[in-house]
Amino acid sequence: MKKNVLIIGAGGVGQVAAHKCAQHNRLLGDIHIASRSIKKCLAVIDSVHEKGALQNPKGVLKAHQLDAMDTAAVKRLIEQTGSQIVINLGHAFVNMSVLQACIETGAAYLDTAIHEDADKICETPPWYANHEWKRKAICAEKGITAILGCGFDPGVVNAYAALAVNEYFDSVDSIDIIDINAGSHGKYFATNFNPEINFREFTGQVWSWQNGCWQSNKMFEVKRTDDLPVVGQQTAYLTGHDELHSLSQNLNVPNIRFWMGFGEHYINVFNVLRNIGLLSEKPVTLDNGQQVVPLQLVKAVLPDPASLAPGYIGKTCIGNLVKGTKDGQPREVFVYNVADHVEAFAEVGSQGISYTAGVPAVAAAILIAQGQWDVKKMANVEELPYQPFINLMNRMGLPTHLREAGQEDSLISFDLEETSEA
Amino acid sequence: MKKNVLIIGAGGVGQVAAHKCAQHNRLLGDIHIASRSIKKCLAVIDSVHEKGALQNPKGVLKAHQLDAMDTAAVKRLIEQTGSQIVINLGHAFVNMSVLQACIETGAAYLDTAIHEDADKICETPPWYANHEWKRKAICAEKGITAILGCGFDPGVVNAYAALAVNEYFDSVDSIDIIDINAGSHGKYFATNFNPEINFREFTGQVWSWQNGCWQSNKMFEVKRTDDLPVVGQQTAYLTGHDELHSLSQNLNVPNIRFWMGFGEHYINVFNVLRNIGLLSEKPVTLDNGQQVVPLQLVKAVLPDPASLAPGYIGKTCIGNLVKGTKDGQPREVFVYNVADHVEAFAEVGSQGISYTAGVPAVAAAILIAQGQWDVKKMANVEELPYQPFINLMNRMGLPTHLREAGQEDSLISFDLEETSEA
Repeated sequence: MKKNVLIIGAGGVGQVAAHKCAQHNRLLGDIHIASRSIKKCLAVIDSVHEKGALQNPKGVLKAHQLDAMDTAAVKRLIEQTGSQIVINLGHAFVNMSVLQACIETGAAYLDTAIHEDADKICETPPWYANHEWKRKAICAEKGITAILGCGFDPGVVNAYAALAVNEYFDSVDSIDIIDINAGSHGKYFATNFNPEINFREFTGQVWSWQNGCWQSNKMFEVKRTDDLPVVGQQTAYLTGHDELHSLSQNLNVPNIRFWMGFGEHYINVFNVLRNIGLLSEKPVTLDNGQQVVPLQLVKAVLPDPASLAPGYIGKTCIGNLVKGTKDGQPREVFVYNVADHVEAFAEVGSQGISYTAGVPAVAAAILIAQGQWDVKKMANVEELPYQPFINLMNRMGLPTHLREAGQEDSLISFDLEETSEA
Repeated sequence: MKKNVLIIGAGGVGQVAAHKCAQHNRLLGDIHIASRSIKKCLAVIDSVHEKGALQNPKGVLKAHQLDAMDTAAVKRLIEQTGSQIVINLGHAFVNMSVLQACIETGAAYLDTAIHEDADKICETPPWYANHEWKRKAICAEKGITAILGCGFDPGVVNAYAALAVNEYFDSVDSIDIIDINAGSHGKYFATNFNPEINFREFTGQVWSWQNGCWQSNKMFEVKRTDDLPVVGQQTAYLTGHDELHSLSQNLNVPNIRFWMGFGEHYINVFNVLRNIGLLSEKPVTLDNGQQVVPLQLVKAVLPDPASLAPGYIGKTCIGNLVKGTKDGQPREVFVYNVADHVEAFAEVGSQGISYTAGVPAVAAAILIAQGQWDVKKMANVEELPYQPFINLMNRMGLPTHLREAGQEDSLISFDLEETSEA
């Protein structure tokens, strides 16, 4: 049993996590939120108070200024706040420094995206082996709980993969993870999370796991169109993504691919920016001698993703299309969630993309606090029991559904002995 | 009679001017080329020697480092080099400082584009009245020859306007200046001259002179399609441009418009960059605290216009479509030039757009050196005798043609007593 949570990062996902932790603070204890900008932390805290989200209104909820690249500073803050669970929602460059602080203090570590070095994109697969997994042995040795990639994707979709493999198939041939945002923010162009991290996903090689090997494609080279629950007919493109890098190693499934939905307008803007060189992470020299990273300027001129929330309408549909055999017959299921931008904003003041990433991280924190996921080692989500996670998310705003040909779509839940709190 | 030429600016147009001055250095005397980057000046000089362009091989051809925003420095260089003619081909922000140095030294001043303040775009029309024309009185008083806007457009098209008004009509109703570059540089995207200056033309209001008033439109709001000599069917868009701001004041013509040809790809890229805010001349602040002008970064990532020259193919067609009456009958003529990118590169190592801008400036310098245009006052090109200018350009590589319904296209030239040199 662990308690007291330190949330690192006060962007859209940090805000969702703060609200959701507040809603469960009788179990989770003190809630601390830290970011480079204390103003952003204070704004998140104001928003929590506005919604009256604290389950225990007398619980601690505090803001801290923090450079999360500085392991010693993270360690001091963990110790000062007595935090036993760290939810790292900072940008992807801080994972290793925050993880190290957890290893040194014994706190449980959680994140929602893979570590990146700022000057590299799309490294050699499997990506986890380049950074996080190098700490597997030390985590096991010291009994550190470190849960990697526990947002929606990666995260929930990893649980969906484990669920499908265990519940519905004797053998699985393919898992296609499909991520569709059918919402509209009403801006000319915006990304749904940090543009710098967002674009870095698409500017390099597209790695996928096919026939048991890594395959490399170009972005927007391969696409598929599906008729999906609620959001209807949608086109998605083969995209490199974190979860493939653990699922390929942890499941015995020969084909695991990730598909992200993009409209023609997004693709046009992306292609113009990329082809001109404006998505580069390498600095260029201006006439006046300034050294500027183009991608950082693009981030500065695009809307702040958090600012999109009030006007965001429509829904997301993210799920796993799984094909294989059961009892000698071919079988195909789609395990999915549908989230609503307007409902997310009403509940926690963030848009749906932030909501789907932040809620699973807090669900995981609750499962660590309760012990089910306090596994005293480093794990990806597919290595953990998915039943309590799916059940908990059903109650926390991200219900899981099953679609199978010839049947009505249905909620997936499990009969478990559960604690009354969560 | 003036001699010794100082060329300011060592971009594509500066290179053309250096070659053309070298080809006429028996008349023009010493040739000096100055720029912020002395390396660029030295490269231009190498190119002149490679082509053996110096008419008098023993003539002076020298490079100088110069900050043209610094009037005192420009003045010193004019005095040190004994230059009596300054061809200002630097960026549009240095006109006033260079002009001031000419006023103080007595040198003749020539430029090819209107002055701009770096932090303003598309000021109140007529633009010349905001900057250059404020020096009209002092130029007249001191007998300074200052010829404004003497590239192709503005410049040659101003002469075409005066020519058409004087030679072909009793009264003119409209002058539509049409600028088509039907060439291809083979890059994903590039501008034909300094991207910073190029984009600034299109990011503000589009001013045109219609029914004797200034009218404001948006860029790409109004278009026309014409079947033009050599380049064929072409679509051009109503665009704000320098020459309208003097022609409207100096000619008694109620409608004077400028149209620039753009392909759909150019418009798409332009719209993406503009809509995202990347063409802004106002600095933005990055996460790391850097203050960056987006347009300056865009300039830094786009190809150097001078680098396009070797691979550039195709032709340009720029001309004035003039409508009015003659002898009581409606009349319509198109006065135009066609230039060839490959021929320009073969002669002077620059592409056709630089060629069409640089040759007229040197033609004007020759006319100043010979006295015909050494008018001891400030003037726009339409205020000067067009006959020797047209004749000289016929011989210098930019012949002028006339198209009129029912007739073969013909060369326009004038019977003049001319010096043997030019």
